[in-house]
Amino acid sequence: MATGDAQAAFRDELFRVGLLVDTGVAGLYGRAAAYDDLLDAFDSLVTRTIMEPPFTSLRFPPVMARWVFDKTEYVKSFPDLMGSVHTFRGTDRQHAELVRLVESGGDWPGALTASDVVLASAACHPLYPLCTGRLPDGGRRFEVNGYCFRCEPSIDPARMQAFHMHEHVFVGEPDAAQRHRDLGLEKGLELLAGLGLPVESVVANDPFFGRAGTMLAASQRDEALKIEVVTPITSEDAPTAIMSANCARDHFGIPFGIETSQGETAHSACVAFGVDRVVLALLRTHGLDPGDWPSVVRRKLWP
Amino acid sequence: MATGDAQAAFRDELFRVGLLVDTGVAGLYGRAAAYDDLLDAFDSLVTRTIMEPPFTSLRFPPVMARWVFDKTEYVKSFPDLMGSVHTFRGTDRQHAELVRLVESGGDWPGALTASDVVLASAACHPLYPLCTGRLPDGGRRFEVNGYCFRCEPSIDPARMQAFHMHEHVFVGEPDAAQRHRDLGLEKGLELLAGLGLPVESVVANDPFFGRAGTMLAASQRDEALKIEVVTPITSEDAPTAIMSANCARDHFGIPFGIETSQGETAHSACVAFGVDRVVLALLRTHGLDPGDWPSVVRRKLWP
Repeated sequence: MATGDAQAAFRDELFRVGLLVDTGVAGLYGRAAAYDDLLDAFDSLVTRTIMEPPFTSLRFPPVMARWVFDKTEYVKSFPDLMGSVHTFRGTDRQHAELVRLVESGGDWPGALTASDVVLASAACHPLYPLCTGRLPDGGRRFEVNGYCFRCEPSIDPARMQAFHMHEHVFVGEPDAAQRHRDLGLEKGLELLAGLGLPVESVVANDPFFGRAGTMLAASQRDEALKIEVVTPITSEDAPTAIMSANCARDHFGIPFGIETSQGETAHSACVAFGVDRVVLALLRTHGLDPGDWPSVVRRKLWP
Repeated sequence: MATGDAQAAFRDELFRVGLLVDTGVAGLYGRAAAYDDLLDAFDSLVTRTIMEPPFTSLRFPPVMARWVFDKTEYVKSFPDLMGSVHTFRGTDRQHAELVRLVESGGDWPGALTASDVVLASAACHPLYPLCTGRLPDGGRRFEVNGYCFRCEPSIDPARMQAFHMHEHVFVGEPDAAQRHRDLGLEKGLELLAGLGLPVESVVANDPFFGRAGTMLAASQRDEALKIEVVTPITSEDAPTAIMSANCARDHFGIPFGIETSQGETAHSACVAFGVDRVVLALLRTHGLDPGDWPSVVRRKLWP
């Protein structure tokens, strides 16, 4: 079966059993309570397993400050995936015109004004401005959870436009950041393999935009700054990334003015789980009824 | 203390104890795990209490289909609260210009294109297209949970731009819709009063936009289509709505083509809890440490 057909077949199967619900937009799904329970179970397992306490645990809303987004340079790398939030700031007369455009199927979004927020580009992005200034000795460690957005309509259920990301982030000394990344990758691989998922780690190949993006992608690969853990979901040939481990170096330390306790520019690293993708991989591997999953897997998720 | 001062003082207190985190945008907050636990506890209490099974339980993502949004007539009533999602769909050359605009602090959002999605205007809005067609005898009942968005930056912590809404929705016969609304209001009042919140129900006075909105607001009041449950959070004089009970009549039945089992246009009704606002009201009423809350309240939330 061709990859596209396999993706559509798996998505339709998820609709049929009612775990996901079609919203009329590719890549955007309602979720049954049973699906949400799987997300929660995996989230809790990650919290219990990956990072030793102490760490600060935060959940960010699905939109974030535009001024923070601007500093992440996301627009440079992935402009076609971002979501900028626009609203109406006009007069009564302009409102009448807006309503007329909506009713006639015209270009009504063109009449809107940019707001102060954008959709969250990564669970960790709202975190860095909280770290501005001098860090304590040993840096800071965070767990962040949130809905992220990528404007990429797809029939592949593992490529959602709105999806959950769960990250463990370190901000501090360069060496410690590298260790956080490497240890997180090791523990993540062990955790995912322990759930019966056939996983392997590969150097990431992010879809940087355009000609300039070709160079960014090459540099990311050459320096192995981002490692992905992949597993087959709808294709054996093109497995899906369900986790990544990233060295951001001073990418956030510089624009957000974050310093180590010694006054050097801080480095950061994050270990990120694509929670929806992990759940889909589990459903694909062990079947659509979690009650029938191997007991070793069930015991880990529901101890 | 003036209302604005009281709002800022409560917000700063929430920041100080770390339950909410400042994101640099008014009305947008990171949430500590302890705050999230309160949301979850109240959500579960609502699920156990308000509506008799059977019902379908769904969680929708924070963005929804634009074509569904267009049919809700939200643009007519609350254009200044909506969030339309825009992204980049240009060439390499246009991308270079976009990056230049971002870096120079120019109007880069103006260079974007509307996507197929908007921020969720209400937890129930994505639900109605799922009901298109002929309903079974007795209609259908749903529980929906989700992040909603209102573009209204405010220092009042009870007026968030991104917030959780938990709704119980009925779609079916007009009489049954009215009963769903009335019974939900009664049970909701009892539940909230049982948590020690001083509540009262009032006819809602929604902030419909502009001159045309004055008429919409008058009609909503005259027919008592929407009842709100209010409680003091940052002001005794201007209590905050923490729940509403709504008769939408055929407002969704007509545009989404929903019919009763007898082939008439279906009516709908929903009972909605502003979960964040309930949590803030509890923190305001019983104090910022849930460990110190009255045991009768604690037993209800953590049975």
